[in-house]
Amino acid sequence: MAVNPQGVAAVLADLKGRDFLSCADFTAEQTVALLELSRQLKSGDRRIDLGNRVLGLIFTKASTRTRVSFQVAMARLGGQTVDLNPQVTQLGRGEPLEDTARVLSRFCDVMAVRTFAQQELLDYAHWASIPVLNALTDLEHPCQAMADFLTMQEALGSLTGQTLAYVGDGNNVSHSLMLCGALLGVNVRIGCPQGFEPLPEVIDQARNLAVADARIEVMTDPVDAVRGAQALYTDVWASMGQEQEQSLREEAFRGFCLNEDLLAQADPNAIVLHCLPAHRGEEISSAVMEGEASRIFDQAENRLHVQQALLAAVLGGL
Amino acid sequence: MAVNPQGVAAVLADLKGRDFLSCADFTAEQTVALLELSRQLKSGDRRIDLGNRVLGLIFTKASTRTRVSFQVAMARLGGQTVDLNPQVTQLGRGEPLEDTARVLSRFCDVMAVRTFAQQELLDYAHWASIPVLNALTDLEHPCQAMADFLTMQEALGSLTGQTLAYVGDGNNVSHSLMLCGALLGVNVRIGCPQGFEPLPEVIDQARNLAVADARIEVMTDPVDAVRGAQALYTDVWASMGQEQEQSLREEAFRGFCLNEDLLAQADPNAIVLHCLPAHRGEEISSAVMEGEASRIFDQAENRLHVQQALLAAVLGGL
Amino acid sequence: MAVNPQGVAAVLADLKGRDFLSCADFTAEQTVALLELSRQLKSGDRRIDLGNRVLGLIFTKASTRTRVSFQVAMARLGGQTVDLNPQVTQLGRGEPLEDTARVLSRFCDVMAVRTFAQQELLDYAHWASIPVLNALTDLEHPCQAMADFLTMQEALGSLTGQTLAYVGDGNNVSHSLMLCGALLGVNVRIGCPQGFEPLPEVIDQARNLAVADARIEVMTDPVDAVRGAQALYTDVWASMGQEQEQSLREEAFRGFCLNEDLLAQADPNAIVLHCLPAHRGEEISSAVMEGEASRIFDQAENRLHVQQALLAAVLGGL
Repeated sequence: MAVNPQGVAAVLADLKGRDFLSCADFTAEQTVALLELSRQLKSGDRRIDLGNRVLGLIFTKASTRTRVSFQVAMARLGGQTVDLNPQVTQLGRGEPLEDTARVLSRFCDVMAVRTFAQQELLDYAHWASIPVLNALTDLEHPCQAMADFLTMQEALGSLTGQTLAYVGDGNNVSHSLMLCGALLGVNVRIGCPQGFEPLPEVIDQARNLAVADARIEVMTDPVDAVRGAQALYTDVWASMGQEQEQSLREEAFRGFCLNEDLLAQADPNAIVLHCLPAHRGEEISSAVMEGEASRIFDQAENRLHVQQALLAAVLGGL
Repeated sequence: MAVNPQGVAAVLADLKGRDFLSCADFTAEQTVALLELSRQLKSGDRRIDLGNRVLGLIFTKASTRTRVSFQVAMARLGGQTVDLNPQVTQLGRGEPLEDTARVLSRFCDVMAVRTFAQQELLDYAHWASIPVLNALTDLEHPCQAMADFLTMQEALGSLTGQTLAYVGDGNNVSHSLMLCGALLGVNVRIGCPQGFEPLPEVIDQARNLAVADARIEVMTDPVDAVRGAQALYTDVWASMGQEQEQSLREEAFRGFCLNEDLLAQADPNAIVLHCLPAHRGEEISSAVMEGEASRIFDQAENRLHVQQALLAAVLGGL
Repeated sequence: MAVNPQGVAAVLADLKGRDFLSCADFTAEQTVALLELSRQLKSGDRRIDLGNRVLGLIFTKASTRTRVSFQVAMARLGGQTVDLNPQVTQLGRGEPLEDTARVLSRFCDVMAVRTFAQQELLDYAHWASIPVLNALTDLEHPCQAMADFLTMQEALGSLTGQTLAYVGDGNNVSHSLMLCGALLGVNVRIGCPQGFEPLPEVIDQARNLAVADARIEVMTDPVDAVRGAQALYTDVWASMGQEQEQSLREEAFRGFCLNEDLLAQADPNAIVLHCLPAHRGEEISSAVMEGEASRIFDQAENRLHVQQALLAAVLGGL
């Protein structure tokens, strides 16, 4: 699916005031248009100044990329960011979420929330009267997935019919890749050990959303997953809060390291992605991380561009 | 007292370079004019761009509303805020206040200070060569009181001769309400248990400042306090630093919960205010907090508008 | 050496995209031109707006002056600052510096780094693709030295042939003073107890860089050091991380307190500098700190102006 450049603004006009809690919140056409706007912002073809708008960040988990990329995205739009991390606010003193969400809605123009539980994000969205963006939950990482597919599009030219193989933990990142990939007509293969599969309901949801006959598949053999794929992707085996399972997980994920052997099974022009931070020698080898196929730092940069596009769209600045 | 719109700028011109440490720092006319400018900024009738001015925040106590509302107010004025909370600065390493105040005066254009002791605020004001604003001390919370009376004015049309009843602890908030109310010709009744009265010298000060025959009264029966009042107000029973007195205070404040019984004694059109964070079931019932009379979230929003007006005035941006 | 005003922009054009890790990174001509631009920015003769550029701060040590002065400098240039202190980022979770540096290079336009080890700063500079500025390391404090010589220039009119005497610990500040002084034709005398001398290789480096026959001398008698000097300078005896040596150092530095006796040995018009925070009664007497000769708060302010000039130069905004 393509959206002509003139049509981007028209399609994205519907996103004004909207939340972005899941990749499934937007239609295929809106997702394509957001990637197109991201590309325009990155290239400098498009500049958007929203005036003195303010983004509130509620991050209950540590973050480098997400926090900085949101803050810079807002700065590029001429706006500012208020950091509401619980260390310096009443949020740490047990004020009910419903009060915090309503108060911040009166001060800020848009809110990005990073929490452990998706339900907490949904609660913020319920009580807030401003757009709420998912900046990472246990269920999804939709801004990351948008950046990932922008990177794949830059490297491969087009997305429809291409295959992205994710090897590792069937986590939030894998969920958003399946949903976003489905909307973009990308075949998504998740290769993960038994017991670490993505949630079945998200797999079903992605299959139902799929356009252009995109196939959403889950398999337990990493070699099957990556065979002939145009993009290989992995993530840490133990996320924040799972460190105590580290040794259990190292055992389970043996064979899922994205190394040169695995890369050799992919399409000869395949690119390598990782949402960072990376643990070299665990889920990815140092050689692959630093190798020619790696687009990992382009991918990190693209967080900035897709979030700038997203902020501009939900703030109605197009 | 009314100030005609054309006269607002003239009246506020005298506030350029001034501190705001207490509600009593400004005259009745200046207070009225600040509320009028706040109203204009909120409605969009007035826009002020001060260029790249910088507000320094010195907050030695946690804060959501105060910190965020100051930061957003500054952003709306085109400026920025530097957070000087002691966790990340030398302030935590015992640098003398007189040095910190003088150095920050060279970097910032205005300073907002939140400390336990009013004396510490006065020390900052003494050493600083830029305007210093009281962002909460043990003695006063003047920005809050300005926001409270703006909310009352929005709901009731005019302030002179109306009655605001505050039930609860005779704390910093009650002090600023008495002083600011006196200047605005509002009758202020403080209903508090014996032993939790406002400071006698602040009561006297308010009575001396009162215009338009405004009565400043302190009583120990909450029903007497709220009878026929146009605005009911409460605050937490134990502020930060008083948590160890929690059970003692719960006992003393029995009967002072702002619930539907108490609300029924007020004017039928009375509004309900609370400066947040609220503890439902303690100083306010959930039903009243979420009820029709509540203007609590308008009140929170108004912090932004009065502080924007205040910043513009002391920075001479009118 | 003087640079004519029209020539400043031409000389500084070469600094676009450059790191500033040491005073020795810039030539004498560039250093003079940076001071001239600082002076123009301070006086308002020159205004520079860089648009929505973003500075990333990586501060692994506490800081008031450095952090605030960088943030305000960036605000004055129309840009913003992202605070990457490890408490709130993945930096605290052990992400390799090489990844952090590369990711931040994609988000920010310039980076200021404050670390214990100079080597860590060099590593950031190696991996970053944006300019990296030294905001204090164990080896140097170059932005401080630039501000110090701007203050000396303001007070004394010209720098060439004047003498600055630093009494105290032969630390990072003393290193940058020797290097920067050498480039500016200022005689620099370091008076320090035996065992607390500056690094011999930095002394040699400064002597090699010296222009206009500037003499770089190290001596153990504080009276010898200050005799006839036009500027006296001191710094705390124990820096962050050396607190456990406090009593040892107090003993060693006896006689090195910058008091009225020592000041009496200097040029009658000598000025007094201190990079703050100060410990009155240790390295400086209260009378001298607050006396007529003190330019300590001008010096603090000048951090803002030299850093604004530096940011403008490396960002190519001239």
